[in-house]
Amino acid sequence: MIRIIDNQDYNAKNMIEALLMRSQLNFKNVQEIVDDIIENVRNKKDGAVLEYTRKFDQAVLTPQTLKVTDNEIQEAYNTLDENFISILQRAADRIRLFHEKQKRNSWIAPDEKGTILGQMVRPMESVGVYVPGGKAAYPSSVLMNVIPAQVAGVNRIVMVTPPQNDGSVNPGVLVAAKIAGVTEIYKVGGAQAVAALAFGTETIPKVDKIVGPGNIFVTLAKRTVFGHVSIDSIAGPSEILVVADDSANPVFVAADLLSQAEHDELASAILVTTSAEVAYAVKDELIRQTEKLSRKEIITKSLKDFGVIIIVNTIEEAIEISNQIAPEHLEVCTREALSLLPKIKNAGAIFLGHYSPEPLGDYMAGPNHVLPTSGTAKFFSPLNVEDFMKKSSVIFFPEEALKELSEDIITFAEAEALTAHANSVRVRFEND
Amino acid sequence: MIRIIDNQDYNAKNMIEALLMRSQLNFKNVQEIVDDIIENVRNKKDGAVLEYTRKFDQAVLTPQTLKVTDNEIQEAYNTLDENFISILQRAADRIRLFHEKQKRNSWIAPDEKGTILGQMVRPMESVGVYVPGGKAAYPSSVLMNVIPAQVAGVNRIVMVTPPQNDGSVNPGVLVAAKIAGVTEIYKVGGAQAVAALAFGTETIPKVDKIVGPGNIFVTLAKRTVFGHVSIDSIAGPSEILVVADDSANPVFVAADLLSQAEHDELASAILVTTSAEVAYAVKDELIRQTEKLSRKEIITKSLKDFGVIIIVNTIEEAIEISNQIAPEHLEVCTREALSLLPKIKNAGAIFLGHYSPEPLGDYMAGPNHVLPTSGTAKFFSPLNVEDFMKKSSVIFFPEEALKELSEDIITFAEAEALTAHANSVRVRFEND
Repeated sequence: MIRIIDNQDYNAKNMIEALLMRSQLNFKNVQEIVDDIIENVRNKKDGAVLEYTRKFDQAVLTPQTLKVTDNEIQEAYNTLDENFISILQRAADRIRLFHEKQKRNSWIAPDEKGTILGQMVRPMESVGVYVPGGKAAYPSSVLMNVIPAQVAGVNRIVMVTPPQNDGSVNPGVLVAAKIAGVTEIYKVGGAQAVAALAFGTETIPKVDKIVGPGNIFVTLAKRTVFGHVSIDSIAGPSEILVVADDSANPVFVAADLLSQAEHDELASAILVTTSAEVAYAVKDELIRQTEKLSRKEIITKSLKDFGVIIIVNTIEEAIEISNQIAPEHLEVCTREALSLLPKIKNAGAIFLGHYSPEPLGDYMAGPNHVLPTSGTAKFFSPLNVEDFMKKSSVIFFPEEALKELSEDIITFAEAEALTAHANSVRVRFEND
Repeated sequence: MIRIIDNQDYNAKNMIEALLMRSQLNFKNVQEIVDDIIENVRNKKDGAVLEYTRKFDQAVLTPQTLKVTDNEIQEAYNTLDENFISILQRAADRIRLFHEKQKRNSWIAPDEKGTILGQMVRPMESVGVYVPGGKAAYPSSVLMNVIPAQVAGVNRIVMVTPPQNDGSVNPGVLVAAKIAGVTEIYKVGGAQAVAALAFGTETIPKVDKIVGPGNIFVTLAKRTVFGHVSIDSIAGPSEILVVADDSANPVFVAADLLSQAEHDELASAILVTTSAEVAYAVKDELIRQTEKLSRKEIITKSLKDFGVIIIVNTIEEAIEISNQIAPEHLEVCTREALSLLPKIKNAGAIFLGHYSPEPLGDYMAGPNHVLPTSGTAKFFSPLNVEDFMKKSSVIFFPEEALKELSEDIITFAEAEALTAHANSVRVRFEND
């Protein structure tokens, strides 16, 4: 079961190391397989894609059946519970509403000399979204990955997902894709799907950016094609950190820790509290509630390996520990939780108060549930609309304005031994 | 010399492939060396760093002399031409002014139900800036890489640069670093510098993000540590594309193409024009001006291998070719250049009119000269302030607002077989 420790026994460096060590970046032999798959798909295109799909997914497809048809999507609508479809729709609406607020406009700054400087912000032309198959095929993740791209204004949103061995795709995933605004879906998974999106095949288009979670093959493939295309941040196992004072309800806190722990055995659930009473009550609750949960074994292992309850003296200390760990999900279950916001430096998503549990953010609140994991919230951000846009600088100078800077540019360029740079300004004023 | 071709003979796909093929991503044997260096630095820290510095830079340093001292910086000020120092200062001011306009505030969106959703935007805590040594030690690049981080509010800006064999560093680089706001400088280069910044040593701090140009070792090292830290986009060889009508001055256009071609033999200079007269006049000018330039050999090779003049029928066709190529630098040397802005989809920086030559943007205009290369402007952006900030989502729900969504969340979570997620919402309303 989860350990309870005192702040004195807490070693930030070790804790962070342990969390980081869970991430998927060091797999040399898998990398070799991935490199092979990428090279093969790059050369043999559809042929290689279909071969790998037969080998890894035991699904026999043709270039004609690689793409999901309108009929298959209609079939998915017929299969799915109507109530669930309307929940998907409501979730999509809330997610869209929040992401609309992130959009940034192009801007220009003209000055009195007639110069114009600015930044154009435009959507990417095409994006690929990877959706895992099997048990990890989450309709909620489809919404979260696709909607920001759609809000950004991306024209072509291509989804790829591994088929089941009969060639079918999870109906929840298909309906979520349709609701979110996917323009086309291909039945391909693994590194071969990433390679197809990065380089294009006869059937699958090359895209500008690839996003979406996947297994180690997908993750390494994405990292390998980075530069040929853009990718989202590297996703590792999930974590939650709850900061609690004595106003926290141990039943709620335990339930929230468990909701994270059920994800997988590498998931991490951490409670940092100023109340020893809350600490022990949460531990009891964890034991009691785990008994009733379907993913009991995963939970027990993850709490044992990566769970901890830390007792501290002050809320400030608790926040400081959280800032060091930079958790994917941070819950602040304290009095006046909102007032602590300025102290929080590093976290993927911040859930404030006793009625903002993490699953609210996973499904219905509106902000994205694709969040930086394993301490990467220090430098990565939740998936957002700007991830699907790119910027161009704009520079317009009238003759006089350039002339004013010309001596500086010429001297600077010559100091860097770039004489053709200097020449380019000089020729414009040669006859002056 | 540069070829002149007609639009009929232009093959977008081949051209883009050729440009992309210049990029530095496929070097298997270099990758192995880089992997070794990273592992060694990760394990032996300062020891490995000093050993590689002795081996690759022929400079014998100690943990004490690894860091640049205040005296060394003062010495650099004394060495450098005073006029050049004030040019650096003026450039820094203009760059800072432009980048200040990019800053994005945190925001919240409260609603009538008492919920608060929002996005916190905060600076990263620490950033590492790589600056190449030798001939590629450009003070302008120091300004361009450091100032956005400083404007973002990054506390600790760590510069690394390989020392000369006497242990010294280019004085222009040191002064530019001081002006731009670097907080500490270490004498280390190559993959060993990237590894030190990614994992930390006894002397060199671990940072959140590593930016800055470098050779193939640096580039591959950055890609390898991606995920442990954030990195900027992968930089390849440079390119310019000039769109010109018959109002263009062939002398100016040729000079601008040459300013790009002098960077290195892989640089690409492309003119797309509606005027055959301009095309041939530019070719003549290229020959004439090249003769007088110090980097004549580099220029001749780069124009021969990656230069081309394409004659088209309309400006729209020219812009369409440019959008396909997604050049790092785009010059629009036409009448009413500003009015073409809406048609331009993909470009790192857009220079409009006859008096906005690319070197203006390299040094003094204000926008960043760190731009997406080799067609990556389709998905990467110029280096900007937001590259040094990260976001956190904010979610606050009062009890009633959560209750309203509770059934949706529970049903959604159960549909995804995540029962502990459902439980976390259910326990909050169990007694209702």
